[in-house]
Order: sequence, then C-alpha cells, then structure tokens
Amino acid sequence: MNFRSDNEAPIDQHILQAIIDANQGSEESYGYDRYSEQFTEQCQALFETWCEVLPLATGTAANSIAMTLSCPPYGAILCHEDAHLNRDECGAPEFFTGGAKLIPMPGEHGKIDLDNLDEFLAGTGVHGEHESLPCTISITQCTESGTVYTLQELKRLKAIKEKYGLALHMDGARFANALVTLDCSPAEMTWQSGIDMLSFGATKNGAMMAEALLIFNTAYIREIKRLRKRSGHLISKMRFISAQLVRYLEDDLWLKLAKKANQQARLFTQETSQLVECLHPVEANEVFCRLPVVLIEQLKQQGFEFHVWPGHNDVIRLVFSHATRERDTKGLIAAIEAHQFRVNQQSTG
Amino acid sequence: MNFRSDNEAPIDQHILQAIIDANQGSEESYGYDRYSEQFTEQCQALFETWCEVLPLATGTAANSIAMTLSCPPYGAILCHEDAHLNRDECGAPEFFTGGAKLIPMPGEHGKIDLDNLDEFLAGTGVHGEHESLPCTISITQCTESGTVYTLQELKRLKAIKEKYGLALHMDGARFANALVTLDCSPAEMTWQSGIDMLSFGATKNGAMMAEALLIFNTAYIREIKRLRKRSGHLISKMRFISAQLVRYLEDDLWLKLAKKANQQARLFTQETSQLVECLHPVEANEVFCRLPVVLIEQLKQQGFEFHVWPGHNDVIRLVFSHATRERDTKGLIAAIEAHQFRVNQQSTG
Amino acid sequence: MNFRSDNEAPIDQHILQAIIDANQGSEESYGYDRYSEQFTEQCQALFETWCEVLPLATGTAANSIAMTLSCPPYGAILCHEDAHLNRDECGAPEFFTGGAKLIPMPGEHGKIDLDNLDEFLAGTGVHGEHESLPCTISITQCTESGTVYTLQELKRLKAIKEKYGLALHMDGARFANALVTLDCSPAEMTWQSGIDMLSFGATKNGAMMAEALLIFNTAYIREIKRLRKRSGHLISKMRFISAQLVRYLEDDLWLKLAKKANQQARLFTQETSQLVECLHPVEANEVFCRLPVVLIEQLKQQGFEFHVWPGHNDVIRLVFSHATRERDTKGLIAAIEAHQFRVNQQSTG
Amino acid sequence: MNFRSDNEAPIDQHILQAIIDANQGSEESYGYDRYSEQFTEQCQALFETWCEVLPLATGTAANSIAMTLSCPPYGAILCHEDAHLNRDECGAPEFFTGGAKLIPMPGEHGKIDLDNLDEFLAGTGVHGEHESLPCTISITQCTESGTVYTLQELKRLKAIKEKYGLALHMDGARFANALVTLDCSPAEMTWQSGIDMLSFGATKNGAMMAEALLIFNTAYIREIKRLRKRSGHLISKMRFISAQLVRYLEDDLWLKLAKKANQQARLFTQETSQLVECLHPVEANEVFCRLPVVLIEQLKQQGFEFHVWPGHNDVIRLVFSHATRERDTKGLIAAIEAHQFRVNQQSTG
Repeated sequence: MNFRSDNEAPIDQHILQAIIDANQGSEESYGYDRYSEQFTEQCQALFETWCEVLPLATGTAANSIAMTLSCPPYGAILCHEDAHLNRDECGAPEFFTGGAKLIPMPGEHGKIDLDNLDEFLAGTGVHGEHESLPCTISITQCTESGTVYTLQELKRLKAIKEKYGLALHMDGARFANALVTLDCSPAEMTWQSGIDMLSFGATKNGAMMAEALLIFNTAYIREIKRLRKRSGHLISKMRFISAQLVRYLEDDLWLKLAKKANQQARLFTQETSQLVECLHPVEANEVFCRLPVVLIEQLKQQGFEFHVWPGHNDVIRLVFSHATRERDTKGLIAAIEAHQFRVNQQSTG
Repeated sequence: MNFRSDNEAPIDQHILQAIIDANQGSEESYGYDRYSEQFTEQCQALFETWCEVLPLATGTAANSIAMTLSCPPYGAILCHEDAHLNRDECGAPEFFTGGAKLIPMPGEHGKIDLDNLDEFLAGTGVHGEHESLPCTISITQCTESGTVYTLQELKRLKAIKEKYGLALHMDGARFANALVTLDCSPAEMTWQSGIDMLSFGATKNGAMMAEALLIFNTAYIREIKRLRKRSGHLISKMRFISAQLVRYLEDDLWLKLAKKANQQARLFTQETSQLVECLHPVEANEVFCRLPVVLIEQLKQQGFEFHVWPGHNDVIRLVFSHATRERDTKGLIAAIEAHQFRVNQQSTG
Repeated sequence: MNFRSDNEAPIDQHILQAIIDANQGSEESYGYDRYSEQFTEQCQALFETWCEVLPLATGTAANSIAMTLSCPPYGAILCHEDAHLNRDECGAPEFFTGGAKLIPMPGEHGKIDLDNLDEFLAGTGVHGEHESLPCTISITQCTESGTVYTLQELKRLKAIKEKYGLALHMDGARFANALVTLDCSPAEMTWQSGIDMLSFGATKNGAMMAEALLIFNTAYIREIKRLRKRSGHLISKMRFISAQLVRYLEDDLWLKLAKKANQQARLFTQETSQLVECLHPVEANEVFCRLPVVLIEQLKQQGFEFHVWPGHNDVIRLVFSHATRERDTKGLIAAIEAHQFRVNQQSTG
Repeated sequence: MNFRSDNEAPIDQHILQAIIDANQGSEESYGYDRYSEQFTEQCQALFETWCEVLPLATGTAANSIAMTLSCPPYGAILCHEDAHLNRDECGAPEFFTGGAKLIPMPGEHGKIDLDNLDEFLAGTGVHGEHESLPCTISITQCTESGTVYTLQELKRLKAIKEKYGLALHMDGARFANALVTLDCSPAEMTWQSGIDMLSFGATKNGAMMAEALLIFNTAYIREIKRLRKRSGHLISKMRFISAQLVRYLEDDLWLKLAKKANQQARLFTQETSQLVECLHPVEANEVFCRLPVVLIEQLKQQGFEFHVWPGHNDVIRLVFSHATRERDTKGLIAAIEAHQFRVNQQSTG
C-alpha cells in the first residue's frame, strides 16, 4: 500500500485510453498536432481568458521556463525556502535563467510569510547594481507542506507583486488538489489573483507525464517555443502528451481525481485525529504527521510505504493519490489504532 | 500517405502494449523503477560491455547532456555543418554546456570530411587561451543526409580522436537504421569504433518517446543524474519511458522495425532509379531526391506528404518509417511513373 | 574626510610609481610579460609552496573563477549570508559557474556558524539528484563585518571541509588586514589551514586595480587561463596589473599599508570605547557602530563621509584605509566627543 | 623593434599623466566618479547624439555585453568567420549570452560578403523553433584583416539589418584607425550608418586599459550596469579607467595617435610596394604580407618582432602603433630592401 508519492501511482484508465486512441495513423510532430491545439482552446475556456499554453513532460521544465520568461540572469526569484524550486530541482531555475539568484523566504506551513516578504522587498535596491534585481515571486499551490494559500492570501500576494512590479508564478504541481479545496474557479485562483504564469500539473493527478505552462500576462510572452526546444523539451511525438492533457480536462476528470485523493487524506486525518499529531494543516492530499518511531517501523513491516522525513525519524509524509483505495486508507488507520490499543493495554495492564 | 517524418508515425503496437502492461499498481518514481534497471542490463548485454545508461524523453536532451559531459564551457565541439546538433536544436548544446562553441565542419553527403577534420585540428592551439579548446567530435549515424558512416570511416575517426585526445559522440537518432545497413554488432559500430557516448534513439523507430544516453568510456562519467534532473529531464513516472525501451530491445523488435523502414526506402529507390535523381546515396530510410516542380505539386495534390527541402523547390525528402506500408510506397512509385509516362507521351506525341 | 570605503582611497605612491616604471617600451601582452612571471615567483616564495597565480583586475572575477574551478553547475556553494559573494556581486558566482546554487549560512559577526555548517552538511544527500551537491565553502577574511577568523576557527573549517570532501575558498579582499591582525604567516592563514583557493586582494589596500587568484590545491587546476579569457578578464596590457602586484609585495609594502589602516581603526575604537557601541568586534580596518541619529547628521554636515547601514539609520560603517591620516581619525573622534560633551551639558544643565 | 601588436605598445604619456592626475584624494567608487560622468558627456558631444556609455577594461567585455543586450540565448549572431568575436575570445559571447549561437560568415579581406549575408538571412526561419533566431550582426572596424568598411558598405549593412529587424554592432577595437581612414565623423561611421552599439577601443591606441561600450539605440537599453557587475567588470576604482578615456578624447589625442600609426603602415606599404605582396588592402595600421621564408628568418634575427601567421610560414602580420617610430619603420624597410638587393645580386651574379 503506497502512500509514498502520487508520482508512484499508475495512469488513470481514461488517460491511458486517450493515449491509445491517439495512436491512429500519422500526425504532425513537434507540437503542431490537433491535440495540442485542442488543449490550448480548453485552457482558454477553462480559465476564462486568453493564455499561451505550452505542453511539457515535466514540472521542472514548466517552472524553469516560467522563471526564464520573467527573470533575467541578473534578477532574483523569491520563493519559500522549502519550495520545490529551491530544494528539489538541483539548480534547474539557476540553469535555465542563466544564473538568476533564488532568495529563500521563511514562513510557516510552507507558505511565504507575507509581512516578511513585503519588508524584505522594501529593503532591496539600496546597493544598486551590486544586488540582484528582484523580478519574480514563485509560490507553490498546494505548498510543499500540503497546505493551500487562501484567496485572501493570494490577494495580499497580488498587492505585493503590484507594489514592487514583480511577476507572480504559481507552481501548480498539485493545482487540482488545491482548487477542489478552495472550491473556486481556476480563474479566481490564478490570473484574477495576480498569477502571471502557472505550471499546471497533471502527472501527480493521474497522467502519465503531462504538464503545461500557462501564461496569462502578455508581458511575459517571449520565444517560448524556442525556450522549450533548446532545453530539449520539444517532444517529437507531442500528440501523446497533449492527448493526455485533453482527456484530463474533459468531463471534469481532473477534478474528480483530485477530489478522490483529497477525500482519502481527509478520511485519514479525521479518523486519526485523536491519535496522530499533524505538523501542518491537512488541506489537500498530503499529511505530515509525527508518530512513535516504533510504530513507524511496524507500519513499514506491514507493507505500508511512505517517506520518513529527512532529519526527523519520527515524522512521516503520507501522500494520497487518485489511485488510493479507501480500503488502503482504512487499513492504515486500523494499523495505527491497533498500535494505540496495544500501548493503552500495556500502560493500563 | 505520410513520408514526411518518422516522427509523425504512430507507436508500434508492441511498445504501446508495454506501456499498458507497465501501468500496474505503484512503482518507484524518478528512475528507480524496475524497467530502468532492466534496460541498463539489456544495454550492457547488447553492447557487450559495461556502460552507463540514462533513459530520456528526447534526443536533444541525450545529445546535449553528452556534450556537457565531454566539453567544458571553454571547449569546442566539431560536427558536420548540417548536423542536427548544429542546425536543429536552437542552441541546445550551447545552452547545456554553458556556452561551448560548435564548429561546423564541411563534408559530402552529411559526413564530416575526415581529411579536412584532421587538418583543422592540426592547426588549432596556436592562439592559446584565445581559442576554444577542441574537446568533442560528434557524428550522426545515420547522417542528416540519410547516409551511413562505414566501419572503415569510423576507424579513421577513432584514429583522429585518439590523435588529438578528443571525445567521440554518436547521435544515433536513427541508430537502428544504420546498424541494419552495416549489418554489424552494436559494439562494432560504437565503442569498438572509438565511440565514447551514444545517443540511442527509439522514438523515430516506433517508440512513443524514448531515447537513452549510453556512456561507454568511464572518463566521461560525471553526475549524470544531476545533469538530467537540473535540465528538467527526470520524468517522475520514468517507468513509462523505460518500459518502452525494454520492449524495444526484446525479440529484436528494434531491428525488425528498422529493417521494415529501410526496405521501403530501398524498394522506392530501386523502382525509381531510372526516373529519379537522388542527391545522396540511399543507405537507410531517407531519400533526398530531385523531382520536377510540377510533379512535386501533383504528388501533394494526390495526398502524398513530404518535406520540400528548404531553399530548393525541386528537392524533396522522403522518410520511410516502421509504419510505412508497402502499398503506400508502391502508390508513390506508381504516381511518379505515371507522371513520367505522361511526359514521355507528350514528348513523343 | 572619507571613511566610506577603502575603494575610494587613492593609489599608494609606490604602486603608482611601479606603473610608471613599467611603461618602458614594448612588452609581451596578454599576461606573458615579465611582471606576471615575477609575481608568480613572489607568491610561491611568500606562501612557501607551489601555487598557480592568475592576476586579475577585480575581486569579483577572482571569486567567480574560483567558484567555477571548484563547483560544477549542479553543485552548491556554502557561504555566509552576508558574504560579498552572496549579496554584492549581482549573481556573478551563479553566472560564472553556469548556475550553481549559493546556500546562505547564518552566523554571528559575519562568520559562518561552524556547528550549524557541520549539521547542515550532515543532513544533505538524502534527496539524491534532486539536491544540488555541496562542493565549496567560501569564507571572507576579513569578514564583511570586519572580523577575522582565528587560526583555531580555520582549523575547524579545515576539519569540516575534509569531512565532507569540499573545496575551501577564501575571499581575501582584505587579506592583508586580516593577516596583520592574526600576525601569522600567509601559509598558516591559507593552505596550512586547508584553504584551496585564495582571492588575494590588493585594490582596497593601495593598488589601482590588482587582485589575484591563487590556487594551492592541484585538484582544482583546470583551464584557468581560458576561464579568464572567456569572461573578458584577460587584459591585453596585463603588465600594468602585474607590475602593481609585484610592487605591492616588495619591501613588505602590503603589510605596512594594512597596518596603517588597522591602526587607525584601533585608535578610533580605543578612544571612543566609552562613547560608541560597536556591533561587531573591531579586528581589522572596519568599524560598525551605533550612534545617535542626530550625531550621524552632524558628522555628515561636518564633512565626514561614511555609509549609513542599509535598514538601520543609527548604524554607520567606518572604513579606515592605508590613506587615512591620523589627523582625520582624530578629527572624527573629536567630533564624537564634542557631541557627547554637549549632551552631557544639556542633561546636567 | 616591435611590430607584433599595438597591445604591446606602452601607454601614451598624456594618458599616463591623466592617471597620475586622477590620483588625488578620495573619489566615489564603482563608476560614480566625476571622470565617468565627464566621459559620458564627451561621448554624447563627439557622437552628436544621446548614448549610454559604459567604461570597461577590456574589449572582450564590451563585445560580450553588447551581444547580451541584443541577442537572447536562443538567438544567433552573424559575424565574419575571422572576427575576433568568433575566433579569439574563447567563447566569451556564448558565455555572456547564455549560449547564443555564433554563425560565421565568409567574405574577402575580413569583411562579411553582404550579398551572401542577405541571401543567408532570407533563407532562415523555415525550421521555426528548431533554428536559433538571427538577432545581431557584428562587424569589426577595422576588420581583422586590417581593412575598413566604407560608408557605402555600411549603408548596405544598415539596409540589411533593417530588412530583417536585426541589431548591428561594431567592434571598434581599432575604431580610431578606421575613422581617420574614412575621414568622416564618428556619427557617420556609427549610428548614422545603423550601428546600434559600439565597442569603442582605446587600449590598442595608447591607453593602459580602457574601452567603452556605447549604445545608441534605446531599444537595447537594459540593466547594463548589472551586466557589468555580474561579469566582474565593475572596477572599484573606476576613476582610473574613465580618466584615461577622458584624456583620450581631449585635444583630439585619439585621432593624433591613430594617424601616427596609420602613417607608418602607409609609409611601409608605399616604400615596399615593389618588393612585398600584401594579402589585404592596407587601410589602417596593419599589414599582412607574404615574404620569402628566408627573409622572415633574417628579420627575426635582426630583432624585428612580428607574428608569422598561423598556418602560413611565409605570411607575416605587421602592426604599426602610436608608439612606432619612423626610424623603426625605415629600419624594417631597409632590411627588406637589403635582402632583395642580395637576391638580385645573386641572380644576376
């Protein structure tokens, strides 16, 4: 029973079928296929606005191209210190931008502390050309701690970005999971909240490999196709990426899949609320919780798979995916309850 | 009937089935899956040597990472002036290497003129640090003109690379097509011929998106996985890339597919030898030929798809793929013969 | 009276004379002049070891080339959060290295907290290729807070760098000022303390524009001249850089100049110890002190020049240089005493 | 007697004196000094237009920053195959631009063949995002062959750059030598001829180390000071660079120095016209000529210094500088005549 990552889950059957269906005869290569075109139209309808759409195979590519569009080499990118961008991409943003500087910002539960951000920005500029020029704020939605920026917080971010004339990027590797939590429209969570660019993820939510970069603000339109090509991300048989994305959006499949994942996380949290301490509010499909080390070992032996958090042998991350079955979640709950029961027995025995 | 590119062909059914089969349950992400491991073993058996194997989604990524491994930013890469690396990757090698210099070399039929290469290299070094340091020779096999370096020519290249202490890279986007032409072992066409690194392509020969970088020479081993990650090429559900590659090599599927493609090209060339002037020897699955402009127009109207070569309105490129049916090839031959017949009629009429 | 920066001081007369003397007839260009050769020999004698020596015009170039030699693009550089490298070079290290990641480390008084550094490094590696690989530690000696790492602290740093197999770089923009404080040999403060590479500064201590990169550890020898050339730092009439450096080291001129600067800082600190609160120990030629805002204004009006520290309107930095005259220092002291006298008068009046 | 390079010549006495004069007291650092300001005003007066002016220590920096301003990483730069930019900067333009592609263009006598350039540009674009986007044309004036583009040729270049919407850059390492040849105004040879950016060289013509980047076209204004800083080219005591440039332009010193150099080249060419075959028209201060190998050896033994051209043991380059004395030139002429006399004697003897 795998709670390790939504990246380890299989492809949703509808999306797999879309790949199979796309394998009919020949089709224009290098992104000039009918699916890529269709996906652009879907996005513009879904987000209720014009936007440029670039299908890609990885989120790292989407994030890094977004940084390149908004931040010159002499610029700085502000993101949470735990942001995937900062910690888990082995310097991809620095590479793509030609050496822009990432400035890690603090904040609880994976969200940038907005007061501190404002104060930090107010203090920049005094060293003139000796400083990298702040150009881009990047947030992750859901955050790396499994939390979700509220529309109120996004509004505040919009005010800050406008105050300092910065670009605002959203790393939406788990965009659908956040959206179903906020229960708002895609437009509200993005461009209406000042988001200029969105890395729109589908892989963690049921696709095989399919992400897209969406650009809402025409100020950041550049030779985006050349940037994709020269980083090796122009896939020749692009139809098989875009066909996934097309199906992902059809019939609200993406929302259904995300709801399933979030529901399992919620089920787990509710049922174990008396037994398990969560480190961050559980707002989407990830749970970070503290468990007795001995219980962690037992769960492993019982075949439960999850990450023990680096540096903390009593903290685990559980990720619930579109493929998590309710019986798996209940099995995990039962295992924790059984442990607690034994402990209680011993202490009262 | 599509003769435009093997990139426009569908996925071979066996490979598609392998993707479907791989979609069972959860699997380690980020390349630590069983298929990636199996493919490494297959490669080492197939090439009869130890090699490092890095599955990737695109050939541009494979080529560019290879350049990064062998050529520092102050170095120079020697390749044919028509090489994909030089003409069709929008500066990807320059980007990945941090600004290495590509030096385009001349040569007939897409092959580097080896005398000229030797002479050029003999003349380098006189400007000391003012010159970029030649580090890597990259060849394409099959070449961009559809020709194949002979083992004899590769032997000569090996002597040159050893004389000057350079790395030798093979861009094998159509590796299988070349191999079945030479009818030698993969080892003979690569490391036994001095090839240090190979971009091993499968996409053009029936895969969905699947390439691999193989490194035979331990001198070029570096943090290859970090290079893949930071360029955004570490696909989270990598199992679906590697599963393609595993199947590609099983049952000699890759060779069967390449033979089918080459056969159609040979069929076309043989049947039209009296009617059509080929610009380059037809040695694999591509044909570059000169046709009357009026015939080119007629063929288009009859639904034949192909590239008219940039800058030459009477030259077309025909690419035969694993999916080209013999009846399509014969249809094309018939259309050309019919035109010729009409012309003959008119001139004798 | 200028206490703003040692960069605003004039050239020491002996060094200016050396430039004039070097202007005799023609001389080999691009660093193959006799002065560059002589300076290498001087360095090897002074540091009592073989070392590679690269004269340069700026410290940013020296630092950035050092980073390039020791840290690949997928690597990480650890430095103090206030390090010039991190804050004041507009991303130069990121640019030169091709996008390596700078990881800012905390610590009091401009020195990296070594316990924290050790702990941080112990925690790296768990994310595999997703993390940038720690490769280089860079310290500044004197630090940006005007303090000096003791030999004891350097010994500890050496142990840490050896424990994790990292490179250790010293940004010695004010190397001479630190050395006369520690009163040890250049060898002791560098390679004997595990320093692999040194940015050896002369500009702030009396030269016109003259710095050098010294590499003690042969593991970091690469095409250093090509790195200099391709970053535009190979000055054609290099003799005029190297002639400065040669004279700088002759007759212990460099130590005499640094001693003069440090003495003035000490004089100021001693005479004002009852009046002025220093934020950092004064260990070389820089003083960071807190003064009443009204006094800061008065001093400015009296013609004293200094930096008010960004974000702190009651903190100033005073830099004493080789050109600071004792009468200037005493003038500043007197102005502060006079203010205090007036304040006392008022409070007792 | 040095005819090897104008880079090996000493500093002109007036310029050296300006450095000495600038060494009075303290002065704002990092380019905010009075000389930098004055030089900007001089340039704007001299070129009869607004322009942005960036003093620098090397021409490689000026060229490379110019490329960065006008060519994105996915762009291409067109220059003569023998251009310094292409051959002698060890990949600096590739480095600064983040991997733009240099496309070497052919042409006689160091000048780009303009018909061929036009034709080449007309053929670009057909491969879409697979091709690097042509963005910048860079010419060298005087060229690397010692020739000078005429105003007529510049006019043609202007038409081409406008036709294709490209930037036009002039590498003016020997700008003064070209200008005195054309005998036109600086404005005519630059922005009135479509030049958007000029690398304005002074080092080869009598300065110690002093170049400047001038930008005439506001379309190419970006964070130029940050680009200078992050490449390590912001010299802290910048006053000593700018003071050279100020003096260089005063009293037409720069033109006088260039005239002296050109005159000696003309004297040599005229006096040896019957004896020496020149490979390129001698239009400024450089002479490329074919001499008997035995004579080349004799000249070397007599103490004449010059470059034997790489790959051609019977071709030498003679560079005449501001410091070349007429008696040196005549000495060289005499040595060649004496050799010819001996040869004649022998053949008639």
